[in-house]
Amino acid sequence: MTELLQKIHQLNIADIAAPLGFHGDGQHVGLKHKSKDLGWIYSETPAAVAGVFTTNQVQAAPVQLNKATIKNGKLQAIIVNAGNANAVTGNIGLEHAKIMQATTAKVLNIDASLVGVASTGIIGQILPIDKVVAGIHQLNIDGDTNGFAHAIMTTDTQEKSITIQSNIGGHLVTMSGVAKGSGMIHPNMATMLGFITTDVSVTSDLLQQALSDDVETSFNQITIDGDTSTNDMVLVMANGLAGNATITTTSADYDHFKAMLHTVTTALAIDIASDGEGATKLLSVTVNNGHSELDARMVAKKVVGSSLVKTAMFGKDPNWGRIIAAIGASDVTINPNIIDIALNDIPVMTAGAPVEFNQEMMSKSLEQKNIAIAINLHNGAAHGQAWGSDLTYEYVKINALYTT
Amino acid sequence: MTELLQKIHQLNIADIAAPLGFHGDGQHVGLKHKSKDLGWIYSETPAAVAGVFTTNQVQAAPVQLNKATIKNGKLQAIIVNAGNANAVTGNIGLEHAKIMQATTAKVLNIDASLVGVASTGIIGQILPIDKVVAGIHQLNIDGDTNGFAHAIMTTDTQEKSITIQSNIGGHLVTMSGVAKGSGMIHPNMATMLGFITTDVSVTSDLLQQALSDDVETSFNQITIDGDTSTNDMVLVMANGLAGNATITTTSADYDHFKAMLHTVTTALAIDIASDGEGATKLLSVTVNNGHSELDARMVAKKVVGSSLVKTAMFGKDPNWGRIIAAIGASDVTINPNIIDIALNDIPVMTAGAPVEFNQEMMSKSLEQKNIAIAINLHNGAAHGQAWGSDLTYEYVKINALYTT
Repeated sequence: MTELLQKIHQLNIADIAAPLGFHGDGQHVGLKHKSKDLGWIYSETPAAVAGVFTTNQVQAAPVQLNKATIKNGKLQAIIVNAGNANAVTGNIGLEHAKIMQATTAKVLNIDASLVGVASTGIIGQILPIDKVVAGIHQLNIDGDTNGFAHAIMTTDTQEKSITIQSNIGGHLVTMSGVAKGSGMIHPNMATMLGFITTDVSVTSDLLQQALSDDVETSFNQITIDGDTSTNDMVLVMANGLAGNATITTTSADYDHFKAMLHTVTTALAIDIASDGEGATKLLSVTVNNGHSELDARMVAKKVVGSSLVKTAMFGKDPNWGRIIAAIGASDVTINPNIIDIALNDIPVMTAGAPVEFNQEMMSKSLEQKNIAIAINLHNGAAHGQAWGSDLTYEYVKINALYTT
Repeated sequence: MTELLQKIHQLNIADIAAPLGFHGDGQHVGLKHKSKDLGWIYSETPAAVAGVFTTNQVQAAPVQLNKATIKNGKLQAIIVNAGNANAVTGNIGLEHAKIMQATTAKVLNIDASLVGVASTGIIGQILPIDKVVAGIHQLNIDGDTNGFAHAIMTTDTQEKSITIQSNIGGHLVTMSGVAKGSGMIHPNMATMLGFITTDVSVTSDLLQQALSDDVETSFNQITIDGDTSTNDMVLVMANGLAGNATITTTSADYDHFKAMLHTVTTALAIDIASDGEGATKLLSVTVNNGHSELDARMVAKKVVGSSLVKTAMFGKDPNWGRIIAAIGASDVTINPNIIDIALNDIPVMTAGAPVEFNQEMMSKSLEQKNIAIAINLHNGAAHGQAWGSDLTYEYVKINALYTT
């Protein structure tokens, strides 16, 4: 993968409409107090589509609708609102999601079966559908594409987007992604929305396979607070306008495409972790020499999800005892007596025993925004990573006051 | 069980040495800055013993030692220190735990195999064994029994203890319990210590069976922050001095004894939840009409463990969408469309749909310290409960600054 990643070039300006044939807009239509709250993505031609969705048994109306919609393998537009999740809203919620879909299709003059729908915001309140419908009529095909990334934000403090390019089979392929966090983020697609556009030509089956594989090491390896949401989804649209020979098998081109996808998903996932609600730190946990990749990922995620590790990092406190306790509490069989732990490259535990370290150097190191927790399980050769944020006063404040 | 519970009388004064033949002490010996930090419990005769221990794979030295010690089914004394967990301290840690055991045995003139050892406090620092040994020599047999409950506290803001009595087979039986919390408390014995003394006569096998069954609905149903500790344990000593016919089978007397045990464990568990680090609320989640008791307990625990539910309750915010989202994220199969939820007896969701409620009445209700979350799964007849605390600024503060 490393060699392929070197062939990928990140553009200075991220734009969801950068791949050939894509357009977008994002506007304020009155669902939120002031900020942008409705946006769309449109492709000039129907695109191959792949999607992954929340594993929560309580699934918001747009999640239910999209699962059905993308079965045909094609999508041409995605309409997204913030400010209201349209979740736990009963039959009327599903009707509203269908109205969003139909209205978008009508305005864009495409078939409703080619329109994806996403919502994010508060759960359990009826969507003000009149505002949404009026808003859809207000959107432009060649609109504020940067506004799209803003229109899907909730408690995010910054937009999350990336555009990359690479050359697949002699053809320049562009891929863009936007995402929103930033609370209720834990295993398996949790309050996050991610939308990826690309002009690569690939079958929808392979696109789905690539996405399903990829999220295991990207979006599903971030956690903010251990809560999983009702609304999460990642949708990828690949419209084929780059003109490459369609990727139909797990070939070299497929691997190249997967490297591009991984670049986008990982960048967005890390952005989400870094912008976790109230975060002052990005925690990156790397587990080496695990028995299997799944083991390594599970340990990494357990550590990054520990409230005690998260509060310690907020306090710039090298309390590594909480890290080994979190490792021991994971569902992975470990031998605590052979494990090494380092914080920002400073060893704190070796072979299960405390290591003396320079307190001053450590304190200075933990002042940084980026905290690297490295764990060596000495139990195999597999590698895994996970990302998260610290647990802060601000997280509590944001979540104590969300509806009131 | 209800009928039996009515036969149990709680004393106004709790005392770990209240059961016949028990003694105790708790003193400050210099492991903590000022407060009591070493205590013991002593029985005049060897008592039947039962224990449950942390499921964390990283197990503190005293946990390792006790597991071996109680295999003989008898215990006559327990020595406990706070201020240092003696965890992740390597071979020297196990040596130190054995020195605590041997010193206690010598001072009390009993066999070392009859002494249990427990430690709580910071992980990964070598126990100052000289202070502990000197401290053990300082303890008295008829000492400050109330001091014992204080000597095992860490970030607890109040002691947790209870004494009850009942009449089993014509004999007055007394049972006392003390416990400490209050962070790192989640599934399966997590940073909590619990010690229960009773003068009932029961075989150690049945005592173990009763305890193992009981913790599933008491101590294992509390969660503070989802982290599990390296040190947790509950030990029960039953010295038989009440003079009842020894309970040797699962008889009516056994059920009566189990009701007593459940009264003590549940009271201590709720005390721990109520005194969770930084807590301003006690959250009690009751799940009715689950498919099985395990299902009902799992749902209750998932809800009480959700950071978003916990922050909402801190904010006195009836954000029930987070409750249904937590239910949906549990490993229990549920049908969101038939579930009812009430907050402090005020319905907020019925059959999966929002219910209008009086906002003013709700706001007033959520001002209370005790918050009752009632969930009806309409999926069977089983019942389960779980207890926890809200997530507050103070929790973050306490845990950001624990070692520094």
